Amino acid sequence: MKNIPFKGVIAYPITPFDHHDKVDIPLFQQHVEHLVQSGSHGIAPLGSTGVLPYLSDEEKEAVTEATIQQVNNRVPTLVGVSNLTTEKTVYHAQFAEKAGATAVMIIPMSYWRLSDEEIVKHYDTVASKISIPIMAYNNPATSGVDMSPALLKRLLEIPNVTMIKESSGDIQRMHTLKKELGEEVAFYNGSNPLALAAFSAGATGWCTAATNLIPAHNINLYEAIQNNDLNLARKLFYEQVELLQFIVAKGLPRAIKAGLSLLGTDGGQLRKPLLPLSESEVSQLKTILESIKNK
Amino acid sequence: MKNIPFKGVIAYPITPFDHHDKVDIPLFQQHVEHLVQSGSHGIAPLGSTGVLPYLSDEEKEAVTEATIQQVNNRVPTLVGVSNLTTEKTVYHAQFAEKAGATAVMIIPMSYWRLSDEEIVKHYDTVASKISIPIMAYNNPATSGVDMSPALLKRLLEIPNVTMIKESSGDIQRMHTLKKELGEEVAFYNGSNPLALAAFSAGATGWCTAATNLIPAHNINLYEAIQNNDLNLARKLFYEQVELLQFIVAKGLPRAIKAGLSLLGTDGGQLRKPLLPLSESEVSQLKTILESIKNK
Amino acid sequence: MKNIPFKGVIAYPITPFDHHDKVDIPLFQQHVEHLVQSGSHGIAPLGSTGVLPYLSDEEKEAVTEATIQQVNNRVPTLVGVSNLTTEKTVYHAQFAEKAGATAVMIIPMSYWRLSDEEIVKHYDTVASKISIPIMAYNNPATSGVDMSPALLKRLLEIPNVTMIKESSGDIQRMHTLKKELGEEVAFYNGSNPLALAAFSAGATGWCTAATNLIPAHNINLYEAIQNNDLNLARKLFYEQVELLQFIVAKGLPRAIKAGLSLLGTDGGQLRKPLLPLSESEVSQLKTILESIKNK
Amino acid sequence: MKNIPFKGVIAYPITPFDHHDKVDIPLFQQHVEHLVQSGSHGIAPLGSTGVLPYLSDEEKEAVTEATIQQVNNRVPTLVGVSNLTTEKTVYHAQFAEKAGATAVMIIPMSYWRLSDEEIVKHYDTVASKISIPIMAYNNPATSGVDMSPALLKRLLEIPNVTMIKESSGDIQRMHTLKKELGEEVAFYNGSNPLALAAFSAGATGWCTAATNLIPAHNINLYEAIQNNDLNLARKLFYEQVELLQFIVAKGLPRAIKAGLSLLGTDGGQLRKPLLPLSESEVSQLKTILESIKNK
Repeated sequence: MKNIPFKGVIAYPITPFDHHDKVDIPLFQQHVEHLVQSGSHGIAPLGSTGVLPYLSDEEKEAVTEATIQQVNNRVPTLVGVSNLTTEKTVYHAQFAEKAGATAVMIIPMSYWRLSDEEIVKHYDTVASKISIPIMAYNNPATSGVDMSPALLKRLLEIPNVTMIKESSGDIQRMHTLKKELGEEVAFYNGSNPLALAAFSAGATGWCTAATNLIPAHNINLYEAIQNNDLNLARKLFYEQVELLQFIVAKGLPRAIKAGLSLLGTDGGQLRKPLLPLSESEVSQLKTILESIKNK
Repeated sequence: MKNIPFKGVIAYPITPFDHHDKVDIPLFQQHVEHLVQSGSHGIAPLGSTGVLPYLSDEEKEAVTEATIQQVNNRVPTLVGVSNLTTEKTVYHAQFAEKAGATAVMIIPMSYWRLSDEEIVKHYDTVASKISIPIMAYNNPATSGVDMSPALLKRLLEIPNVTMIKESSGDIQRMHTLKKELGEEVAFYNGSNPLALAAFSAGATGWCTAATNLIPAHNINLYEAIQNNDLNLARKLFYEQVELLQFIVAKGLPRAIKAGLSLLGTDGGQLRKPLLPLSESEVSQLKTILESIKNK
Repeated sequence: MKNIPFKGVIAYPITPFDHHDKVDIPLFQQHVEHLVQSGSHGIAPLGSTGVLPYLSDEEKEAVTEATIQQVNNRVPTLVGVSNLTTEKTVYHAQFAEKAGATAVMIIPMSYWRLSDEEIVKHYDTVASKISIPIMAYNNPATSGVDMSPALLKRLLEIPNVTMIKESSGDIQRMHTLKKELGEEVAFYNGSNPLALAAFSAGATGWCTAATNLIPAHNINLYEAIQNNDLNLARKLFYEQVELLQFIVAKGLPRAIKAGLSLLGTDGGQLRKPLLPLSESEVSQLKTILESIKNK
Repeated sequence: MKNIPFKGVIAYPITPFDHHDKVDIPLFQQHVEHLVQSGSHGIAPLGSTGVLPYLSDEEKEAVTEATIQQVNNRVPTLVGVSNLTTEKTVYHAQFAEKAGATAVMIIPMSYWRLSDEEIVKHYDTVASKISIPIMAYNNPATSGVDMSPALLKRLLEIPNVTMIKESSGDIQRMHTLKKELGEEVAFYNGSNPLALAAFSAGATGWCTAATNLIPAHNINLYEAIQNNDLNLARKLFYEQVELLQFIVAKGLPRAIKAGLSLLGTDGGQLRKPLLPLSESEVSQLKTILESIKNK
């Protein structure tokens, strides 16, 4: 029986920095606490939202430990351990397991477009070195490689690769996954504006940074789906779709930081080259957030 | 109040030819009769499925008249009148109106990529010459022009342009349409494999050729949505999605003709350059159809 | 030995209309005469520039006859006879041959994306009904189908398919064509802004509407290449590249008509839905043309 | 007067590893020596070919120093210092300057799609901390961001950003650069299969890994262009184009390593996840290399 520890809304915290460009761990833990208390069904540090690739090894380790300590087993944790080289991916996956992570997420980062053989070998090597489950993450826009359903099928034959996160932005891909991988495959939607379509298509969960800003809306949408109430789900989705589109268009770390400030929470500093949203973008975000609050 | 005569499953008949490459009107009428009796909520001759652009003016007129006579007001009719030139589009729109069509469908066919101004002028000219409603049809793959939500908004200001058919294949486009054009806009999905996602997003109807082959599955899907039963809709969708993908991949007229033969109905001949499906394609289609029948 | 009657600059006249939307044959013949006298190495009526798909059969026939009469064998003629159906393509190809055309150009127009088999059958059927050479034309943006080098190779096995016009806009395609089809294949560039790159890659000719406006610049570029003078060819190309980009971006019939007016020649009327360039576009074109004149 | 130290063929060495996954510096220096002695006009370590992103800071520093020591001012050196964060990019740029690099190359690596403001700020910060020239590198496929001609124009206003390397693979982009940035802009082609087209368009140089395998062919092509002999350049280009296409399709480090072995030179090991070419790929490469040798 496959070990599939996640369902529902899996929340991605940002990694806040202080004014000296150091990771602000206490502030990070406040964000994690807020995500847990808001009802998130899982916490996923060191994703794209958490600017994983911008962090040093020591910073990644500190964020991993801070998450697990703060969450304290109230919900499962999913730690991002992707790295360009196989050796470093193994290193971080082992660190996460030892620190107490429930599972790890791995995207086949590729400066060079990896062949199918290279990708299978990469996952296989990492999987053989840990015993917690792995979520394989497909996001061609970020990784430069689009893992076909056939390739994902091969990955799922590795015993502890048990979950797929799909962010290609093409809803038809999810239909194909489900048809080709079997009705029982656990796939997760990573494309925010496809939240309704993906749940309609049978996604097990939704990986999202939006929960930093509008947790109740995200969770209510999931519950409407669970209650088989499409009309309510549709209504809730259209209430939040503009925010979902906005945070994707502007980049998750920048948009979430700005949104937190608008909601009265300290979002910390960004690490350069990332810059804060412009004034007009902040004002646009403010309008969107207010319109959601009034619904 | 906008005149919006369609909802549900709008069925697209093929145009069958005899062995002398003449349109086989009696056979066409049998197909139409079958579509009506199977519960289709509307009949749409002279679409892409009906190889509109391959027909002479006289053939288009004969098909229009045969449809209206056969349907005999049991359900509304939506006649395709698209043409490369504005003058010919007006001609066919007027013919359809006079013949008794409920509405006409118009895609801005463009050998030359039309500007927004040219498209608005085109629709405006045709609209001013008829009084039945117009469905504006966006299908960049076919027409070579992608009508933006902003442009569609301008078209909807023309009084008798009351409906939009969207076939860009991007579900996010439907979300944007609904947000930008208002919750009340009537949009129709023309991309078969998006049937579930589009209904989830609030589509008023589904324009499809699949009804020639699996009418009950198409109509049951719509009814599940009407009954707010997402779980049932999802189950029904996955039962038919392979057929929906197949007929799109192989081309609707070719795939429908082959499917009709497999179901024991005469699909007539194709007009060249279109050729019948290969033997292996027919065999693949047979497997798909049998798998659906057994569900 | 293959019959390859074209090289150099093959000029595409527009089809001008009068104020009653009739083809203005005398004006068309003036344009053709100007193209011949300016040194064009071939004349190609009824191309995209000549709005072939917007014309009735009678209009196509009149334009064909007017061209052949006016050119009067001073240079070879290449008549566009593409049609959606195979039967009509045969009809127009036979008409062109009987009227005295040197060769015909055929693009596999496809409302429905044609399979390789359908395309081969289409060309083969037409080729078997005429004895003059055929130029196969690849332009995915216009026809909706991208003929692969492998498919073009199959077409070249048909005895009177002897030339390829390539307008996919990808210079690497031309390299591949030359490698795969043999150094001796005659390929023609149909993408104006690639004129220099295509000649550098070994194109036999350049199919262009620019000759209506700047014949000397087009022909001088070809002659510099013939003289193996890349430095001069590059200089000449950069002098005209803005015009080449402009006429493609705005649509050839609209841009050429506007340019003719600016040069003091009557460009006639456009057939709707095509509309004249806007005032600001005309002004932009004026600046470009003046800048070329001063070089 | 702009400081533009490169022209001609700029050679990219691979970074070879030993059997313990350590950078093999002595072997690397042999490769560099071969590139210099073969007539390369510049040496560019730590590019994509040199798997820059797969290296630790210490490895990057060792490669930088080994290059500069080995080249010993015989030709200029161009050191890759791109990094995801601005701070690390500054760090490596300063290291390269101090070590004696002639110039540095910087691509705006972006896990998150950077805004124009972020990119300008990134280059501006780095440029202000060094005094050697910077080559700004545009490669959307690798970096995830496509720098428009307008943005590149802004970058060129930074005093020591003096060169542009363009690898978008679209020859029209080079035409636009030259028109918009002025005839005097120094742009370099980074897309191997566009070598002939880019030189025809006026590229100052060609950044290539092919020189590891066929240096004479690369350099002869450049010299033919310098001698204004397009016919010879075209002949030389078609002799090598299959190799250029092959190394791009298979990934430069993998293909170069395999090619070196075929030529009797030790290419070292690859760092995982990169794997050697398959047997059939090696055999294909062998055929290509032999066919070139026989020309």
